[in-house]
Amino acid sequence: MTEFNRRIVLASRPAGRPKPSNFRVEDAAVPEPCDGQVLLQTIYLSLDPYMRGRMSDAKSYADPIEIGGVMVGATVAKVSQSRHPHWKEGDIVVAYSGWQSHAVSDGSDLRRIDPAVAPISTGLGVLGMTGFTAYAGLRNIAHPGPGETVVVAAAGGAVGSVVGQIAKIEGARAVGIAGGPDKCAFVKHEFGFDAVVDHRDPDFPQRLADACPDGIDVYFENVGGHVWDAVLPLLNNFARVPLCGMISHYNDDASSTPAFDRLPGSMRDIQRKSITVRGFMNVEFIEQQPEFLKSAAGWIADGRLTWREDLVDGLENAPEAFIGLLEGRNFGKLVVKVFSEQ
Amino acid sequence: MTEFNRRIVLASRPAGRPKPSNFRVEDAAVPEPCDGQVLLQTIYLSLDPYMRGRMSDAKSYADPIEIGGVMVGATVAKVSQSRHPHWKEGDIVVAYSGWQSHAVSDGSDLRRIDPAVAPISTGLGVLGMTGFTAYAGLRNIAHPGPGETVVVAAAGGAVGSVVGQIAKIEGARAVGIAGGPDKCAFVKHEFGFDAVVDHRDPDFPQRLADACPDGIDVYFENVGGHVWDAVLPLLNNFARVPLCGMISHYNDDASSTPAFDRLPGSMRDIQRKSITVRGFMNVEFIEQQPEFLKSAAGWIADGRLTWREDLVDGLENAPEAFIGLLEGRNFGKLVVKVFSEQ
Repeated sequence: MTEFNRRIVLASRPAGRPKPSNFRVEDAAVPEPCDGQVLLQTIYLSLDPYMRGRMSDAKSYADPIEIGGVMVGATVAKVSQSRHPHWKEGDIVVAYSGWQSHAVSDGSDLRRIDPAVAPISTGLGVLGMTGFTAYAGLRNIAHPGPGETVVVAAAGGAVGSVVGQIAKIEGARAVGIAGGPDKCAFVKHEFGFDAVVDHRDPDFPQRLADACPDGIDVYFENVGGHVWDAVLPLLNNFARVPLCGMISHYNDDASSTPAFDRLPGSMRDIQRKSITVRGFMNVEFIEQQPEFLKSAAGWIADGRLTWREDLVDGLENAPEAFIGLLEGRNFGKLVVKVFSEQ
Repeated sequence: MTEFNRRIVLASRPAGRPKPSNFRVEDAAVPEPCDGQVLLQTIYLSLDPYMRGRMSDAKSYADPIEIGGVMVGATVAKVSQSRHPHWKEGDIVVAYSGWQSHAVSDGSDLRRIDPAVAPISTGLGVLGMTGFTAYAGLRNIAHPGPGETVVVAAAGGAVGSVVGQIAKIEGARAVGIAGGPDKCAFVKHEFGFDAVVDHRDPDFPQRLADACPDGIDVYFENVGGHVWDAVLPLLNNFARVPLCGMISHYNDDASSTPAFDRLPGSMRDIQRKSITVRGFMNVEFIEQQPEFLKSAAGWIADGRLTWREDLVDGLENAPEAFIGLLEGRNFGKLVVKVFSEQ
């Protein structure tokens, strides 16, 4: 254990694609917990696309990170000191303590996890917020019926892989979209999707149509961009589109948008096909998290739900890994190992 | 009564804005009803924006009108001959008999209307499909709560005027958008909207913001275009957007779209504010029509629901009136008087 708190702060706001110079590594004193607080030692840090939004000062659902402020993020951490009656040393928790090796917490943002169910890093992925995002969007917005076709992009990613697997559990047909033959093969064989289409294929729209002979009933939207253009003509009447992200646009700047307005055509199709588009964040359904964790633990135990992690070693490598995440370079849930579990 | 069936057919498909030459007036023999049929004499013809879509051969929810085919549309008609046991001469019905003076029907598409409730032309407007569109969108998608802010564009139009009045009946605050000071004044004073904003005002976005100090909870979308751009930043978290039309785009051709893609920004706002956009057509809720008619008759009787008609005299003037409708030149529900009621 180091003697200091290593942390990564926002050095400057990115214009478009983040650069390493937008981040700065700092070493500070390890904070001291007061009465009613615990000291956390970060084991794993989650890297997620939403963090790009928090680096900008554009109006959003959450305040931007201040310049010089620690990058935000979910972590799996060990309680290394406790001055709180409900937490004891050695407890493994999910916290929201950010890109740093240590943090204090009053316990209100902690969730204890059971290392017997699955490796603790899954508390950031399949048993964490990304898995819950998939569950909440399917259950509350998409409600796929047996035999319906569910399409999800970034199907090798942390959300998409769970969307497809839960869709299958619900009796639907799962069609994944991923980038490159390796990811596509993995999505099909490891996650058990019924079909997978490579969005880099020059014939991608036709390939997607071929993979969806009965059209698309649910499109779980988390990427935007040219995938939407291929999906829209295939959406059936009364299709549902849970919308939890637009990763392909997170790095857009004024020069990025094509010189063509796709909005009227999209709205026209939404109208004439009675489509529902519903933006959401998992937190609005947070009261369903316990039942999700119970269901997911069961699905993991009986082999119907699996996951893939892309593990990066060392907090100082988080910025580069995050930049790659926004370009789709990760393969599975991107997690940074900060300290060893022991 | 003329000796022939005057009808208006589609002479050619419009590119962009329809022109008078896209229509042709024809006189044909009055059809003879067979056993099980009635002969209808058209009293009023409804002109509605959706007809623009039917003039194109682009894929849509309904087949296009064929070249040389009679323009489609709802009518209020009188049964002038009956060879059907359930209909008698003199019955006043809503039919879907199109832009013509006479038609035969087997009765399956007819709905009897009671002239004692309101003038029979309202069977095409406030007590017809436009009124029902407003009701169905509010009841099934928007469900405005007391004190919420409901915004509707084309507030002087057949759908918009009913949206605002039902929103008020439900206890919501109704804010209308209309074009020009005369329409705005009418919407405010005759339809009782709480506020009205002129979309031609150079400060329209700011005026709309001023009229919606608590943001917008429901935006009933029936126009598209620059109104959406002003509405989007004002939508509250969990706002609902029933989408029943995009009249400002119906005449778009390849040269009409601005050189800027508004889709990613719209989708991003939909996501971060957990907004629901739901396209719909009133027919999907058609089983609610009887309860709508009962409620609306009550609201008319107690003075809470009123309407305005823009009456055009003579079937041969329908094309010009329809072209004006797509440019917002009408003021109230646009209806063509084909024959006198007596």
